Amino acid sequence: MLVVKIGGGDSINLDGIARDLSTVEGPKVIVHGANALRDRLARRLGVEKRILTSVSGYTSVYSDAELIDVMLLAYAGLGNKRIVESFQAHGVNAVGLTGLDGALVRGMRNKGIRVRENGKTRIMRDLSGKPVAVNRKLLGLLLDNDFVPVVTVPIIDERNVAINSENDDIVALLSAALAPKLVVQLIEAPGFLEDENDPSSVVAHIPREDLARREREATGRMKRKLLAIRRLVASGSTRVVIADGRSEHPVADVMAGKGTVIG
Amino acid sequence: MLVVKIGGGDSINLDGIARDLSTVEGPKVIVHGANALRDRLARRLGVEKRILTSVSGYTSVYSDAELIDVMLLAYAGLGNKRIVESFQAHGVNAVGLTGLDGALVRGMRNKGIRVRENGKTRIMRDLSGKPVAVNRKLLGLLLDNDFVPVVTVPIIDERNVAINSENDDIVALLSAALAPKLVVQLIEAPGFLEDENDPSSVVAHIPREDLARREREATGRMKRKLLAIRRLVASGSTRVVIADGRSEHPVADVMAGKGTVIG
Repeated sequence: MLVVKIGGGDSINLDGIARDLSTVEGPKVIVHGANALRDRLARRLGVEKRILTSVSGYTSVYSDAELIDVMLLAYAGLGNKRIVESFQAHGVNAVGLTGLDGALVRGMRNKGIRVRENGKTRIMRDLSGKPVAVNRKLLGLLLDNDFVPVVTVPIIDERNVAINSENDDIVALLSAALAPKLVVQLIEAPGFLEDENDPSSVVAHIPREDLARREREATGRMKRKLLAIRRLVASGSTRVVIADGRSEHPVADVMAGKGTVIG
Repeated sequence: MLVVKIGGGDSINLDGIARDLSTVEGPKVIVHGANALRDRLARRLGVEKRILTSVSGYTSVYSDAELIDVMLLAYAGLGNKRIVESFQAHGVNAVGLTGLDGALVRGMRNKGIRVRENGKTRIMRDLSGKPVAVNRKLLGLLLDNDFVPVVTVPIIDERNVAINSENDDIVALLSAALAPKLVVQLIEAPGFLEDENDPSSVVAHIPREDLARREREATGRMKRKLLAIRRLVASGSTRVVIADGRSEHPVADVMAGKGTVIG
């Protein structure tokens, strides 16, 4: 079992990933983002994106109903289906799904995010939450019949409402359910960088016991990603590789030892 | 087996359809449009929609790559997933799919549409085509396990490219594969109207042998719909009902005998 998380940046080589995956035997699950597409679409539609930073330093997008609409347009619509199209073109029998479809990824809505505003702490509640359960029946049906699920947000909350969630948390949950040997995280960098401004500073290996420290030192989205990865490698014998999604052969590069190996 | 085509108008009562369908036993397949959403989105994005009228009088949307993008945003994204969300809220275990997913609906790209322009006939070729084959394996897997496929365009052509297609043709193809007893067409009118400007002129019954004449007399989208319905009822013992998707109980109304029965 292989799980591949494809980052949502514009320079990710989707076609190269599809080509590489067509040569990898065995069951696979894909989780993808579409943040660049979402941001571009939101700008064109005049929808404002608001970033919250929690008191503990994690950033997230404030998701109101309008932003969920934009997410459905960008992630579930254009982003997901162009990936499915590219996979199909390379002979990978992809089926695109959100967490809503067949209630594939059930979540619990966040009670609220504690933010500091003008020197005061307030609780902001939005349409976001944590994934807590996977519909194994649907996932199993697809995997047992050689389909490749291509999964993205939104997920479905306890009241059957579409909510935003971190794709990295979905990867962690799917991995707990599927126990993949390998989880590949394809991002817009050659791996985890010692110095985020120096692409040559790739850390070849992060032992499990260093993750908490790395997470404390990281900022922005990488901080959140490392939190999700720490949970992921804590749960079992899964190896995680963070690698470059922009290269000519993003997945083949991982198999050849490139990127940052975690665990 | 029940097939329901949900029209893509803004005044369709999606929630009422979901509620009604939660009380209907047995396997169901949904096909839906999203043309009002697409048109609104295209306007907001400044994407122009071009309507072609073929020399034989059928109208269609000229689909270039940009319009397929808008279709993926509107049909596959926002439209499909809000329907899935509403179905899930009513306990109907919907799985939203386009024809791309698992190559569910394979099409053949149109060779070109013959149009008259400035007194001359030209061939216009775009990203559109006819659905020709259904992936019965995927459809069967879902139906046998009590999932409700919610299907929309685009479909996938012989070269694995996303193309536009008529949802009514997809309904006809799915019906040929599934042999449903009943196909319900929910539109923004109380049924097929003798006079399209008079909502009280619902035709209660159109016998199979009258369809060719009705089709000749119809204009615009209804002409195309009747062509698809004629093929559909010609193929078997399927009954088609055209009914009002805007009412409080669109599907229950059909079961109670409202709308236009064809066949």
